[in-house]
Amino acid sequence: MTYCLGIITDTGLIMAVDSRTNAGVDYVSTHQKLFNFSRLGDRVIVLCTAGNLSMTQAVLNLLHRDIDTQAEVNLHTLDSLYEIARYIGGKVRQIREQDRQWLEKDRIDFQCSFLLGGQIQGKAPGLFLIYSQGNCIQASKDTPFLQIGEAKYGKPILDRILSFETTLEAAAKCALLSIDSTMKSNISVGPPINLVMYEKDSFKIRYELRLELEAPYLSQMRRLWEVSLNEAFNRMPDVDWDQYLEVPNSPTRGEI
Amino acid sequence: MTYCLGIITDTGLIMAVDSRTNAGVDYVSTHQKLFNFSRLGDRVIVLCTAGNLSMTQAVLNLLHRDIDTQAEVNLHTLDSLYEIARYIGGKVRQIREQDRQWLEKDRIDFQCSFLLGGQIQGKAPGLFLIYSQGNCIQASKDTPFLQIGEAKYGKPILDRILSFETTLEAAAKCALLSIDSTMKSNISVGPPINLVMYEKDSFKIRYELRLELEAPYLSQMRRLWEVSLNEAFNRMPDVDWDQYLEVPNSPTRGEI
Repeated sequence: MTYCLGIITDTGLIMAVDSRTNAGVDYVSTHQKLFNFSRLGDRVIVLCTAGNLSMTQAVLNLLHRDIDTQAEVNLHTLDSLYEIARYIGGKVRQIREQDRQWLEKDRIDFQCSFLLGGQIQGKAPGLFLIYSQGNCIQASKDTPFLQIGEAKYGKPILDRILSFETTLEAAAKCALLSIDSTMKSNISVGPPINLVMYEKDSFKIRYELRLELEAPYLSQMRRLWEVSLNEAFNRMPDVDWDQYLEVPNSPTRGEI
Repeated sequence: MTYCLGIITDTGLIMAVDSRTNAGVDYVSTHQKLFNFSRLGDRVIVLCTAGNLSMTQAVLNLLHRDIDTQAEVNLHTLDSLYEIARYIGGKVRQIREQDRQWLEKDRIDFQCSFLLGGQIQGKAPGLFLIYSQGNCIQASKDTPFLQIGEAKYGKPILDRILSFETTLEAAAKCALLSIDSTMKSNISVGPPINLVMYEKDSFKIRYELRLELEAPYLSQMRRLWEVSLNEAFNRMPDVDWDQYLEVPNSPTRGEI
């Protein structure tokens, strides 16, 4: 699996991914899943990929080819992020048409999804999720994050911490904690973690991180978080058993 | 969906469940998913159910019928929890055989699973998970909990807090936090929460809780946990950007 996370706030964007891919449990490897198609000063375009590696790589190849051949429509010519999301969705559909009947013969689902974050000159920053079917959704102020891949383990912390007003610094920490929690609970998500911070209207990536498992910051964060969670847990009040107690009458009937 | 959680420690058992069921998003209802088949002084047997309601109810009906008709083999005559797990698995298979071809016509998966926790006189306490296929696994000291249903959101806290040496009081709190985190992140899991505490070798349920959403303890716990998590988050060190920074050379080639 994979875990990719995009966060949009009123001051910019955070995009973060793990790097583990697996085909079953006996073929696990490390692949880059965060790709920067930005053009300095003109546009910032960051893509994260999840799903079947052959499908995401095929789509990326088509995106590169259009740039390299200076096709009329490519990631550098389209003038809105929505258009770009639909354009990427079109590439997904193209690969889908090409491969689907062969995959279906072996009952392999066509599964790949993308997060697209960035900003184009003259427009607001945006964050999109492009589905396996080629359609897309956009993050909004109410829920300022989108996830693809193994998203559930890392969602509770986002639900409790993030808002559109969160600083980029805090959003980056929150993203790292969310991915680290996922890595602890699911071996199909693993290091290194790649993270990009983009400040609105700057039209260049501010920071790019690549954190290996043993990166001092990651170890420190994990240790502190574990200690803090355990302390918080120990402060939870005891259950007031007597108040809620329902003594079973005759507990042989199967229902309490 | 559903979220059921069983925890076994060196001093006993905690079993806890939510009560929400849904068939799509437009038919959401509340159903009991925790069932007590104990016989005072002789055995404690608690079952939690997840999956298709018609299937779990069918299995429960067969279990009740065998007790009511005093069938030779029933939940009160079998003399080990493993035998009971296999016996329940047999009922799952029976319903499966009965319904599968009809479900398959409409592409409905046969999905139901059970947690079985308890103790029989002369034996150690045990905790089992019975799959849709009728086979089962048992919790062990290394991972002293089992989950069925919507398990991922609530797993990180268990991974960080629980061990076989955790007190029953703490295990109960941890179970409530795990279910509450899941309820916050996924609307298919909802109150009331039912929880049972069993102390090893007592052969009777010690406590039974039923917590509605507005239960004072649950509200207090949720509020405190949110505050504590946010405090813990605010204590996390800032990312040491300079140390990890990799300045992109020419970020137009799609890979960073």
